[in-house]
Amino acid sequence: MKLPLHYNEHDFIPAYHGIATFMGCAHTRNTADADFAIVGVPLDSGAASWRSGTRQGPRSIRENSLQIWGHNRHLNITPKREFKVVDFGDVVLEPINLAEAAENITATTSAILETNTQQLTLGGDHSITHPLLKAHAEKYGPLAVIHIDSHTDTYQNLEYLEHGNPFWLAMRDGYIDPAAYIQVGIRGPQSEPGEIEEAQSIGARVVTIEECFELGMPALAELVRQHVGDRAVYISLDIDGVDPAYAPGTGTPEVGGFTSFQMLWLLRGLTGLNIVGADLVEVNPLYDAGAMTSILAANLAFELLCLMGVSKREN
Amino acid sequence: MKLPLHYNEHDFIPAYHGIATFMGCAHTRNTADADFAIVGVPLDSGAASWRSGTRQGPRSIRENSLQIWGHNRHLNITPKREFKVVDFGDVVLEPINLAEAAENITATTSAILETNTQQLTLGGDHSITHPLLKAHAEKYGPLAVIHIDSHTDTYQNLEYLEHGNPFWLAMRDGYIDPAAYIQVGIRGPQSEPGEIEEAQSIGARVVTIEECFELGMPALAELVRQHVGDRAVYISLDIDGVDPAYAPGTGTPEVGGFTSFQMLWLLRGLTGLNIVGADLVEVNPLYDAGAMTSILAANLAFELLCLMGVSKREN
Amino acid sequence: MKLPLHYNEHDFIPAYHGIATFMGCAHTRNTADADFAIVGVPLDSGAASWRSGTRQGPRSIRENSLQIWGHNRHLNITPKREFKVVDFGDVVLEPINLAEAAENITATTSAILETNTQQLTLGGDHSITHPLLKAHAEKYGPLAVIHIDSHTDTYQNLEYLEHGNPFWLAMRDGYIDPAAYIQVGIRGPQSEPGEIEEAQSIGARVVTIEECFELGMPALAELVRQHVGDRAVYISLDIDGVDPAYAPGTGTPEVGGFTSFQMLWLLRGLTGLNIVGADLVEVNPLYDAGAMTSILAANLAFELLCLMGVSKREN
Amino acid sequence: MKLPLHYNEHDFIPAYHGIATFMGCAHTRNTADADFAIVGVPLDSGAASWRSGTRQGPRSIRENSLQIWGHNRHLNITPKREFKVVDFGDVVLEPINLAEAAENITATTSAILETNTQQLTLGGDHSITHPLLKAHAEKYGPLAVIHIDSHTDTYQNLEYLEHGNPFWLAMRDGYIDPAAYIQVGIRGPQSEPGEIEEAQSIGARVVTIEECFELGMPALAELVRQHVGDRAVYISLDIDGVDPAYAPGTGTPEVGGFTSFQMLWLLRGLTGLNIVGADLVEVNPLYDAGAMTSILAANLAFELLCLMGVSKREN
Amino acid sequence: MKLPLHYNEHDFIPAYHGIATFMGCAHTRNTADADFAIVGVPLDSGAASWRSGTRQGPRSIRENSLQIWGHNRHLNITPKREFKVVDFGDVVLEPINLAEAAENITATTSAILETNTQQLTLGGDHSITHPLLKAHAEKYGPLAVIHIDSHTDTYQNLEYLEHGNPFWLAMRDGYIDPAAYIQVGIRGPQSEPGEIEEAQSIGARVVTIEECFELGMPALAELVRQHVGDRAVYISLDIDGVDPAYAPGTGTPEVGGFTSFQMLWLLRGLTGLNIVGADLVEVNPLYDAGAMTSILAANLAFELLCLMGVSKREN
Amino acid sequence: MKLPLHYNEHDFIPAYHGIATFMGCAHTRNTADADFAIVGVPLDSGAASWRSGTRQGPRSIRENSLQIWGHNRHLNITPKREFKVVDFGDVVLEPINLAEAAENITATTSAILETNTQQLTLGGDHSITHPLLKAHAEKYGPLAVIHIDSHTDTYQNLEYLEHGNPFWLAMRDGYIDPAAYIQVGIRGPQSEPGEIEEAQSIGARVVTIEECFELGMPALAELVRQHVGDRAVYISLDIDGVDPAYAPGTGTPEVGGFTSFQMLWLLRGLTGLNIVGADLVEVNPLYDAGAMTSILAANLAFELLCLMGVSKREN
Repeated sequence: MKLPLHYNEHDFIPAYHGIATFMGCAHTRNTADADFAIVGVPLDSGAASWRSGTRQGPRSIRENSLQIWGHNRHLNITPKREFKVVDFGDVVLEPINLAEAAENITATTSAILETNTQQLTLGGDHSITHPLLKAHAEKYGPLAVIHIDSHTDTYQNLEYLEHGNPFWLAMRDGYIDPAAYIQVGIRGPQSEPGEIEEAQSIGARVVTIEECFELGMPALAELVRQHVGDRAVYISLDIDGVDPAYAPGTGTPEVGGFTSFQMLWLLRGLTGLNIVGADLVEVNPLYDAGAMTSILAANLAFELLCLMGVSKREN
Repeated sequence: MKLPLHYNEHDFIPAYHGIATFMGCAHTRNTADADFAIVGVPLDSGAASWRSGTRQGPRSIRENSLQIWGHNRHLNITPKREFKVVDFGDVVLEPINLAEAAENITATTSAILETNTQQLTLGGDHSITHPLLKAHAEKYGPLAVIHIDSHTDTYQNLEYLEHGNPFWLAMRDGYIDPAAYIQVGIRGPQSEPGEIEEAQSIGARVVTIEECFELGMPALAELVRQHVGDRAVYISLDIDGVDPAYAPGTGTPEVGGFTSFQMLWLLRGLTGLNIVGADLVEVNPLYDAGAMTSILAANLAFELLCLMGVSKREN
Repeated sequence: MKLPLHYNEHDFIPAYHGIATFMGCAHTRNTADADFAIVGVPLDSGAASWRSGTRQGPRSIRENSLQIWGHNRHLNITPKREFKVVDFGDVVLEPINLAEAAENITATTSAILETNTQQLTLGGDHSITHPLLKAHAEKYGPLAVIHIDSHTDTYQNLEYLEHGNPFWLAMRDGYIDPAAYIQVGIRGPQSEPGEIEEAQSIGARVVTIEECFELGMPALAELVRQHVGDRAVYISLDIDGVDPAYAPGTGTPEVGGFTSFQMLWLLRGLTGLNIVGADLVEVNPLYDAGAMTSILAANLAFELLCLMGVSKREN
Repeated sequence: MKLPLHYNEHDFIPAYHGIATFMGCAHTRNTADADFAIVGVPLDSGAASWRSGTRQGPRSIRENSLQIWGHNRHLNITPKREFKVVDFGDVVLEPINLAEAAENITATTSAILETNTQQLTLGGDHSITHPLLKAHAEKYGPLAVIHIDSHTDTYQNLEYLEHGNPFWLAMRDGYIDPAAYIQVGIRGPQSEPGEIEEAQSIGARVVTIEECFELGMPALAELVRQHVGDRAVYISLDIDGVDPAYAPGTGTPEVGGFTSFQMLWLLRGLTGLNIVGADLVEVNPLYDAGAMTSILAANLAFELLCLMGVSKREN
Repeated sequence: MKLPLHYNEHDFIPAYHGIATFMGCAHTRNTADADFAIVGVPLDSGAASWRSGTRQGPRSIRENSLQIWGHNRHLNITPKREFKVVDFGDVVLEPINLAEAAENITATTSAILETNTQQLTLGGDHSITHPLLKAHAEKYGPLAVIHIDSHTDTYQNLEYLEHGNPFWLAMRDGYIDPAAYIQVGIRGPQSEPGEIEEAQSIGARVVTIEECFELGMPALAELVRQHVGDRAVYISLDIDGVDPAYAPGTGTPEVGGFTSFQMLWLLRGLTGLNIVGADLVEVNPLYDAGAMTSILAANLAFELLCLMGVSKREN
Repeated sequence: MKLPLHYNEHDFIPAYHGIATFMGCAHTRNTADADFAIVGVPLDSGAASWRSGTRQGPRSIRENSLQIWGHNRHLNITPKREFKVVDFGDVVLEPINLAEAAENITATTSAILETNTQQLTLGGDHSITHPLLKAHAEKYGPLAVIHIDSHTDTYQNLEYLEHGNPFWLAMRDGYIDPAAYIQVGIRGPQSEPGEIEEAQSIGARVVTIEECFELGMPALAELVRQHVGDRAVYISLDIDGVDPAYAPGTGTPEVGGFTSFQMLWLLRGLTGLNIVGADLVEVNPLYDAGAMTSILAANLAFELLCLMGVSKREN
């Protein structure tokens, strides 16, 4: 086989080859004719509790997405062939002032949604989900939210946004439908008794990790699907929902979590929904090993993209 | 929220902040009014078989304990609020002469136990458990011992202490009650046929990893509880009981071990006992990745502390 | 105990001690009286898809094999005592020209098999299995092949050998018996729909990872044993069959794979077969963490050696 | 020699031993009777240009300061014996809002200076020097500033503080005496022609790295001493003044810098001045190798402390 | 300052931001109107002697080039403003067959040179310089070559190309003008006596590292300029010319080399020449620390680009 | 060129190839007909002050010696061709009891010296030099010692051997000739004033690093040669004599040291002496980066071997 001098985004070239965009998709700021846009948010100023470094997350996920070939056997979809998927690059932001960064996230996302393009966002710390939910809620109304995480992220004692309270603030601001907010995989030591009750008090259905393991993935996926029903759904996936053995590269690891296989099968079970947006956050390559976290994140982002494709096909 | 200029050990400050003591507990050499003392033993001269570096273990566990918030939902305890917990710092020792180091470990521990403070020790290689058991046995008599590990550590062919024989020597010296010594998680290639029989010959109930997995964690915990009964119990947890995927930072990793979830649930099942002391050993940060081993160790130490708290509350 | 000034290959010396051969076996190029030869193939030019570095694999596996003591409790065998096992060192090759390297692999292997020595090969990327199968097939005829991997490696669109097509080429060249070729653990995104069908079209029994997990290890081992029957069996184990959490140090990691415990128990279930050769490939220490991949690889190589010993005892 | 069960801050214990304070100094928030306080500022939100992670700097410098014994042969001083040196711990701050963090830095520093204690600050990104200069200028009036760095940090195009403009803002705010501000070691590609002229336009004497190398360290030190004269001097040392070979662990490395020997000798040449404060910033352990940057930083902090001691002795 | 939602290639955005092209230059395969094209060659099959991994070099240099601002004070040039510089991406190649890869390198380079665009190539192992010289010699005739390296790379005992003989083969094939070939920085143990004489026998002026250090950089640059005169010059810079302390991330490190400052000043001294092409090779990020090698490589590539710009301005 | 199926120790095979002995020398415990034996001492129990891990030193130096080709242009020697050089492997020892380990080191060394073989020892921490000097002094009488290091290692306050006092104990025990003991490269903070005077009081000529730099390497080498004269000379080279930028992988790094070039040229200046033995100690691969320390150590060991060869040729 003679190698070509040039190639296009549908050719399979080696993963260490070429400019690193997500899965080799074309890079453009113009989403007018795109079905899906991959958008990076390289922020870590919201990571107030422990480790910084998630600003390096989007680039690392892109680099490690290049070995992901196109077809998803489980969901029977080849997203890059069936849809126009573009890599938008990153939201422009400054780490100094989180409030202004949040405004830019919302503005950029709104501009993309405006073109009838769905957005898959690569974080960045979890604070970015608040401005992302804002943009989506402005388009779709209060959202059903599937929030996969080890932490509740509904801490109510701060006035300002950081990565411990985006869902509390989003609920307060009306971006989330309280009847359709579910947290999956919650675990770990807590600052005070009552953290789970605090989440429940704003409407969250909290599924702890032990409940997840008792149910098993198919039943867990069914429970999640029932909870959100046929509403417009936003999925927010914090990589620390997975156990640190599978994802050490994250800001606040919590031991005792999902395996990669479990997480893949949870996502693959979320078909039949009306998904309007998704994010994957808290990947911190500075604490990774052999890039395993970024590789897993790239695969989970691929599953989210496939889910969004299946949903778009159906809706 | 206005940040204070000062804070105390019960304030939640970011994990990367301040002098690193275990869970932010106050550091003092005076344990007179303390319920629990965290004590480091930075030793690795007993690691005769493979890798050195466990002398760096206590500091690394302390650093990675600072994200552990206070409340344990499973055991319903907030140890730092319910008890006075101090960080004693480290036993003073020299790596040159293990015998003298062992004397210092016993002397320091005895001095702490004297003040009616219970000790949770952070190793250090497993040889330190011999002088620790000595100090505890001098106070409590021959101890029931729950020994979680991949190795039997009851090698009988050496006259001197190293990390392969602390339990054989402790049994020989009368620190362990032969009727109440249980090994959990044993696996791996052996030097010769008969290693398990060698452990059994001194009274150990050996629960191999395959037996553990067949039982499942609740039944395993029940089996352990039955074996030690209402005796004074000492728990010795070698981090290599966990699989290297979850704990690569250790001296002699053995593949095919517990997940972090399983280990957490084993410990959480050990309520209702009369626990008088515990150690967590063989954390070697020089071979770790993303600090995942130290983070797991800090969480397991937290569970041990909570178990000791529950036990103290009940006894 | 007085330490000796010298020792032989059956003495237990610390793992960080001495010249690193596999499990401390004597190094010799003369296999005339050996039952088993460990042979390294330090090649990575076949790793066309992503990461290079498997040329460093054999040395790293050797180094991390030195803590593996001799006795396998599960298979009841102490291979170094029951058989003469030697470390042959590495096949001499140049990375520049894969075709010539392949010739050297076949020639060296044939010379070893000629002495009635069985060979356990440490890779190297998976392309080496084609010349290895050639040498074995020349001696034993078309082989039953147990191929444990996350990828099918039966890509049919290239004329030349690389690590994505050794089994397609080996089938084409008549080295594999189409009635007795089984792939175990297959998963991951695919370049196009139909990759599994492509493997099936050349006779492969493809057991996907989800089928593996549903069966459980004992039933999976039984299924494998049934498929190969009493033919001459060659086992090819790609370390990426294991999940990246357990084996990050590999060229094309696929998330959602076996745990180390599962892989150990799969191998331990493969008794009663007529095993004539085996390889362990795709260990890439450049992406490892705490040497966990090399340690696991060394343990899996030990299990393969034990399996070959049990088979030799029986056949 | 019998090891003691306890020790005090003047005993030499192994560097891997005990709670990690700077050079083993006692930790206290009360500086009433202290001559010198070591203060950490674990901040990285000001690192707007490239890498985050300097929030981990103070802890890492402390850990690697423990091998630094007490006596400085070149400056003939043993600071811990001649003065009371305490480790204050860290300024309390939140990464979310840099303005508020800056207020806390100033307030804490002022409180310490109030007790007639001199402060040696361990950063943190370079933005912290602005609030530090503020507190010092409030006590001492406009300061002579010796600014050792590869970057001018006098960027004038932003309204808000970040790590590229603390000296411009400090000059604007009157904290620096324009007649006595010297930049040493400047180099690297620039965003636009005129960056050095921009610094000169606010009064800075800019000594580029090539000028430094031509002068040699003794003449360079003499030039610096002449420039600041007998004013109250503040030294701000950015670790990226050193070449990345010696200090890879920093946020914005610039190649072609000082060796460690040169930096040591530059500092040792700064005797005879009236030093009232100093900081060492931009140590980022997440990009370090073998802790070499933190070790160098700890040594440079020791030299700064010795310089302050010599100055105090003389003034 | 309000951040924009979009930016162009001349805006300064943070280095961790956006799709990683060299210095943020636009990525295009069309060089019709470009003055300079940055071209990656992600190859390591020619690295026959020791370590693989240079296939990851181009991507890593790109990533670490994003902090390099635009203006070179020493050469008084701002290349991205004065010229059209594009990032072409990588030559398409397969690692399996080096001969075919070399053909693709020549063909791609020729196509770029055809558009009157000068090429700055980022390797890849040093074998790539042979096909690069071929393409340039076809356009410019036999070239003057400035070859900066620790190794002579003129090994004459092999028939095929690898990274130890590109210059011997290029001389043999008439791509180099024997009167104008100079090697700078040669050092290290040799396979046999006579390696330097072997290089000299084909016309090379060999400047050993000790000769370099005795001359000093200005005189060395003058010597080099004199040797190549006003011919068409190609510069080939092997990163292992620099000492491993400054550039550990390379395939065959040789101790005792240039500092980064020396290498920068050597390049800055090469003005007044007619430079027609350049490459920077042997960056291997798998052995790097804190990305220091890639950062240095990016800076050296910037100097090469500036040199080419100065040359173009003058010629 | 057709690759051979086998090779011998004088063939040049790739560095990543085969069983790792020092420079590919044959491994044997029988030194009867050997001129030089390379002997490893994998010990770190003497590293009482900071980091353990030097037990991994000998293996790492061996691995990284395989790229060192045979000929030394500066000393005009090809040691493997001119002499019989063997790799003895390691001294057998246990880390538990340093006194017994020391006995084994002396006994093994004496047995080798007995066969009229000179020994080049690879450590291990610096405590091993005491038993090494003992064995050499028993054969040659009190030795002239060239001790290159950042630390004096003549601490007199301990009764037992560790890595801070081997030279004090060796002087006390009569193994060193007080008139011919020279320390080169001494620097760093000291525990108390008077450390250099302590060394001088036992006869050491202490050349501090600043004196070294003022002299320059040729004059320094001359000074060393004059000091030891025509006595039987033993060279002990602590890798921490080199700056941590060049050798981060060591137990107690001291900033401000030699470059690799300087150290090479110091050694190359030590011709014309009667060298009877040498060691290279304190290489700790656990803190290395890109193996740069082990590579430098391997090169320095090569220079020592060449020096010993030149000396043997002349004496």
